[in-house]
Amino acid sequence: VKRSGRLAVRAFRTEQREFLVEGPQGVREALAPPADGRVGPCLEVYASRAATDRHDDLRRAAADAAVAWTVVDDDVIAVLSDTVTPQGLVARCRFVDTSLAALLRRSPRLVAICADVRDPGNAGTVIRCADAAGADGVVLAGSSVDPYNPKTVRASVGSVFHLGLSMTPDVAEAVAAARAAGLSVLAADATADLDLDAADDTQLLELPTAWLFGNEAWGLPDTVRRLADRVVNVPIHGRAESLNLATAAALCLYASARSQRRAPG
Amino acid sequence: VKRSGRLAVRAFRTEQREFLVEGPQGVREALAPPADGRVGPCLEVYASRAATDRHDDLRRAAADAAVAWTVVDDDVIAVLSDTVTPQGLVARCRFVDTSLAALLRRSPRLVAICADVRDPGNAGTVIRCADAAGADGVVLAGSSVDPYNPKTVRASVGSVFHLGLSMTPDVAEAVAAARAAGLSVLAADATADLDLDAADDTQLLELPTAWLFGNEAWGLPDTVRRLADRVVNVPIHGRAESLNLATAAALCLYASARSQRRAPG
Repeated sequence: VKRSGRLAVRAFRTEQREFLVEGPQGVREALAPPADGRVGPCLEVYASRAATDRHDDLRRAAADAAVAWTVVDDDVIAVLSDTVTPQGLVARCRFVDTSLAALLRRSPRLVAICADVRDPGNAGTVIRCADAAGADGVVLAGSSVDPYNPKTVRASVGSVFHLGLSMTPDVAEAVAAARAAGLSVLAADATADLDLDAADDTQLLELPTAWLFGNEAWGLPDTVRRLADRVVNVPIHGRAESLNLATAAALCLYASARSQRRAPG
Repeated sequence: VKRSGRLAVRAFRTEQREFLVEGPQGVREALAPPADGRVGPCLEVYASRAATDRHDDLRRAAADAAVAWTVVDDDVIAVLSDTVTPQGLVARCRFVDTSLAALLRRSPRLVAICADVRDPGNAGTVIRCADAAGADGVVLAGSSVDPYNPKTVRASVGSVFHLGLSMTPDVAEAVAAARAAGLSVLAADATADLDLDAADDTQLLELPTAWLFGNEAWGLPDTVRRLADRVVNVPIHGRAESLNLATAAALCLYASARSQRRAPG
């Protein structure tokens, strides 16, 4: 338990290649059998006595997956938990990311590359939206937040387990690899001339695509924007100053999903 | 100042019909001259000495709008502020909502009705997204959160000043009024058979529309869902359990905006 408590710190997570997932929904996703028949990411579940009584379904899922279910006191849960009001359930999981090369070898049709996205909640919500839009993977590139940050995991509402997840320190390298894998690279940027609806009209969005999203405050630097095949803005029809990152990402990814699903063949 | 500090409490806001807006972006929007040439909503700006030095543009905007600029100590800002790290600027503003009847008399083409949306941040983000999508108004119906809640105002990033805003205690009445004003009422609900892309294909989204969004946790109750002309779901292409309310609202409103803008005539 003491060792698990340290997983709140990024350096320990990276060393152990393990992270924590909180709450019933997250634990359920961690215990779900992977579609490819491989061993799931969950290594152990810590549960309070009350949560153990409340979530018999999860206890059975843990047993089915041959995952230890350890009943602990509330103060232990408090140490493992990142929330103000813990729900009594924390799963210790193996890292689920893959190398960028492995992600791209699966011939993805829709990928989100986050360039220097720093806010844990935003990154988690982008992962959730990418999953909802049916994207094959999310790449956290440059100085982006650690996907195993407890806030990111929580904001993803289990989606960290659903799609390919890669981390790479170099944004330019990620873009080059995506293009080499046959993806059209579209940068989302408010300053672009081409808007998302017009892009849709030109069939641009039908292509297998990697969307490039920038930092929530300063967007994409010029040097990164220039790496893209096209730069696209989400139109602001009213007087809002901007959209938040996750909303803009959801609109871009869903526009691609719609266009790809409608494309002939 | 003491009276203004009380505006943190809903009962005092409602009595005074005044609310507070924090931070440079919010204060800028509060001071912007309304398009219709009427007097703006801002009554007074409280600023720390540092913020006064830093934001000469805002001080000029206040002077142009004949709005008092009151320099106060940091501890006064702290009392007026809802944030942990106040930015030294708080505007006291007149309420900006209108009656539902007045909002509907303006022949809106796109409106969001929030039914029992309780989280202040979510409601503010819906207002921001609705503004970005070019919606004409947002109706906070039923037991929805007060739009003048400091967290709602902050999450709207100034959009509370940009579009028609109404509050009405009765969801059914709001729906009936929207329909009587010629709007097609579409309820967003994960259980619907019709998905947003299919709705788009049938030209359904070209009509002047009021979207009905439910509570972030329990969605729309049956009784409310049945009031809509059609129920539409945002498709989940991947394995995400759901989308958050504001993202779902953004996807619906942007789909309507695109369809309406493309419709012949």
